Amino acid sequence: MKHHFSTRIAGAKRSAIRELLKLTEQPDIISFGGGLPAPETFPHEEMAEIAAELIRENYKNVLQYGLTEGSKTLRRAVCEWLRPQGIDVTIAELLVTTASQQALDLLCKAFLDPADVVFCGLPTYMGAVHAFTLFQVDKIGVPLEDDGMDLDELEARIKTAKDAGKTLKAVYVIPDFQNPSGITMSLDKRKRLLEIARREDLLIFEDNPYGHLRFAGEPIPSIYSMDDEGRVILLLTFSKTLCAGLRLAVMLAQGDLMDALVRAKQATDLCTSKLTQHIAAQYMLRYGLENHLKEIRPIYREKRDAMIAALERYMPAGVGITWTKPEGGLFVWMRLPEGIDATDMLEDAIEHKVAYVPGASSYVDGDGQNTLRLAFSLVTPEIIDKGIRRLAEVVRTTIEAKQVAAGAR
Amino acid sequence: MKHHFSTRIAGAKRSAIRELLKLTEQPDIISFGGGLPAPETFPHEEMAEIAAELIRENYKNVLQYGLTEGSKTLRRAVCEWLRPQGIDVTIAELLVTTASQQALDLLCKAFLDPADVVFCGLPTYMGAVHAFTLFQVDKIGVPLEDDGMDLDELEARIKTAKDAGKTLKAVYVIPDFQNPSGITMSLDKRKRLLEIARREDLLIFEDNPYGHLRFAGEPIPSIYSMDDEGRVILLLTFSKTLCAGLRLAVMLAQGDLMDALVRAKQATDLCTSKLTQHIAAQYMLRYGLENHLKEIRPIYREKRDAMIAALERYMPAGVGITWTKPEGGLFVWMRLPEGIDATDMLEDAIEHKVAYVPGASSYVDGDGQNTLRLAFSLVTPEIIDKGIRRLAEVVRTTIEAKQVAAGAR
Repeated sequence: MKHHFSTRIAGAKRSAIRELLKLTEQPDIISFGGGLPAPETFPHEEMAEIAAELIRENYKNVLQYGLTEGSKTLRRAVCEWLRPQGIDVTIAELLVTTASQQALDLLCKAFLDPADVVFCGLPTYMGAVHAFTLFQVDKIGVPLEDDGMDLDELEARIKTAKDAGKTLKAVYVIPDFQNPSGITMSLDKRKRLLEIARREDLLIFEDNPYGHLRFAGEPIPSIYSMDDEGRVILLLTFSKTLCAGLRLAVMLAQGDLMDALVRAKQATDLCTSKLTQHIAAQYMLRYGLENHLKEIRPIYREKRDAMIAALERYMPAGVGITWTKPEGGLFVWMRLPEGIDATDMLEDAIEHKVAYVPGASSYVDGDGQNTLRLAFSLVTPEIIDKGIRRLAEVVRTTIEAKQVAAGAR
Repeated sequence: MKHHFSTRIAGAKRSAIRELLKLTEQPDIISFGGGLPAPETFPHEEMAEIAAELIRENYKNVLQYGLTEGSKTLRRAVCEWLRPQGIDVTIAELLVTTASQQALDLLCKAFLDPADVVFCGLPTYMGAVHAFTLFQVDKIGVPLEDDGMDLDELEARIKTAKDAGKTLKAVYVIPDFQNPSGITMSLDKRKRLLEIARREDLLIFEDNPYGHLRFAGEPIPSIYSMDDEGRVILLLTFSKTLCAGLRLAVMLAQGDLMDALVRAKQATDLCTSKLTQHIAAQYMLRYGLENHLKEIRPIYREKRDAMIAALERYMPAGVGITWTKPEGGLFVWMRLPEGIDATDMLEDAIEHKVAYVPGASSYVDGDGQNTLRLAFSLVTPEIIDKGIRRLAEVVRTTIEAKQVAAGAR
């Protein structure tokens, strides 16, 4: 039946990260793979009470169809929460989505024709790569520096793409604690990116799932808050701040762009679950999302610290292994010596009962074989220590085997 | 910013039915518009208890990310439920979707390139029309008869499309109590449709949201159950059998087709909410969906009876107004005299505090101006009576005004 496939699906592969999630079902594997939020941060007692009350007393509403734009109660609560953060919007600028992956899908639907160009980081979030690939978008990678995307390189690649007659549409960035690298874009670069977008008439897709999980350093304003032309679309999500199982996110956009996104969502899933929307809204109204975030940030900081400490303790020194030290989010990004293939190494790692995400699938240019992503979010500091010790052993063995093979040649 | 729109979104309109849902928020309007399930059928006490228990005791699981294919517990429960209905499948043939609209979106993504042909009823479900339109599919309408799609016409239109060099991909049908017409496809036609699909190498998208809400007559086997080649994809949903607010459905497909759908879903929303999946699964395991359906079918029958009785009582006789009498589902389909435009009439109806869905948006050939859909599902028999009386008054006035205008010419 493969001859019935669309052109777009024939070019789309299964997601390595989703297949990996299946492995984490084996209880003896320590997984640094999926970017899963820490379950101990889920306010489950409060949510259980809210869910039961909503379903019992408000079932005619929360178990019914809802507005495509999303529940007004939730959108109002999000507006109230965003205002002190310098994002002063009305509910008309907010669209509730069935988590951020849907927001990426809607961006593709609304704005991207096949062969349209989107610039993205090297590396970048692989879920975005999957969405762009499914819509046959031309993904042009731009290297990352320690303070975010290399904007000189972005300008160079814009010029090359324009010279080649391509249709340039957008820049996709994850400014805070980027997935997978953990890198944060500086304020200067955010401003300059916005200027470039203005000059070149590009949209900016600002994906910020982790910004509210900052546990060190100072918050940096979102690009959305600095945009006075309505060319930035901001993606926020409840998946990391509240829990992933609600499949709930919001995207911010203005005017025509919002109108296009709403039309795309109507055809995509009519509306997001009112039940999950109202659970989140009531949690925000009763307990305050900011209070909750204050409680959970130290949990993630402790895990990051445990991972950094374990990496320093166990990883072979002097062979050129490096890793990032993010100020928030869920991920440490690791670079192995050139010539080591993290995808090949994964099989050994799984035999040693530890898992991670190979970096290659986060590179749209086919690079990154020697990189990998370590999520410190799911497991306890003690397990992190144990898992990194296992991983270090696998890395050491892999490097030694490589050296032996090189010597034998 | 409209110049940033994709070609596909530039051609997609806002859904009239979704905009209509907003009107139903006004409490004094009697709405026969949206196909909303009856809230008194939602087993809210049971669901409240289940939700609280799941979140409290199983939060590490139900509030976390899940498998793209869907929770195994839910898929197993669905398999058990389907077996006595003559659909004997394993969980590998089941994909959980974020309600049926997403299933339509995934069908488009996986199988339909721009300009590919899908045959559908005249009229057909407008949500499917929206999905196909967004993916720039060539929708070819085929008239409906009292026992379903006119298959002679289908064969004629297949020939015409082939002669025109088009790429024929699929037939989209809603065999039970079709939306919007309420018409059920006979067993003979189901068999013949499958033969035509085999001969012409077409897929069949069998959308069955209402089949389990049969309150009169005998069930007819699904086309999926008669297919031994794996060319039928069956869409089922919990939106009408349990409640709409969970945004939960399942689609059945085999082999390569299922593989393509899973890949499409990964890029679309990663996974459906585990919380909503487990609520449905636990409800099925503890109470039995079939027991629930036995309880709710009479509720819908009573409402249909009330609507049919009110139509007979109030609608002007002898002017050529007709309506269907469905054996299940949510909808009565009404045909006004030629020359009456149900879209124009809606404004008057809303002034008279009654709403419906004009039929034109369910016709992909631009026809159907004199048709409209009446959902009897949401309101009580008493309100149905009151609403149809209002509507009859609007219809009478509209016809009389038309006659006066014709006389004056």
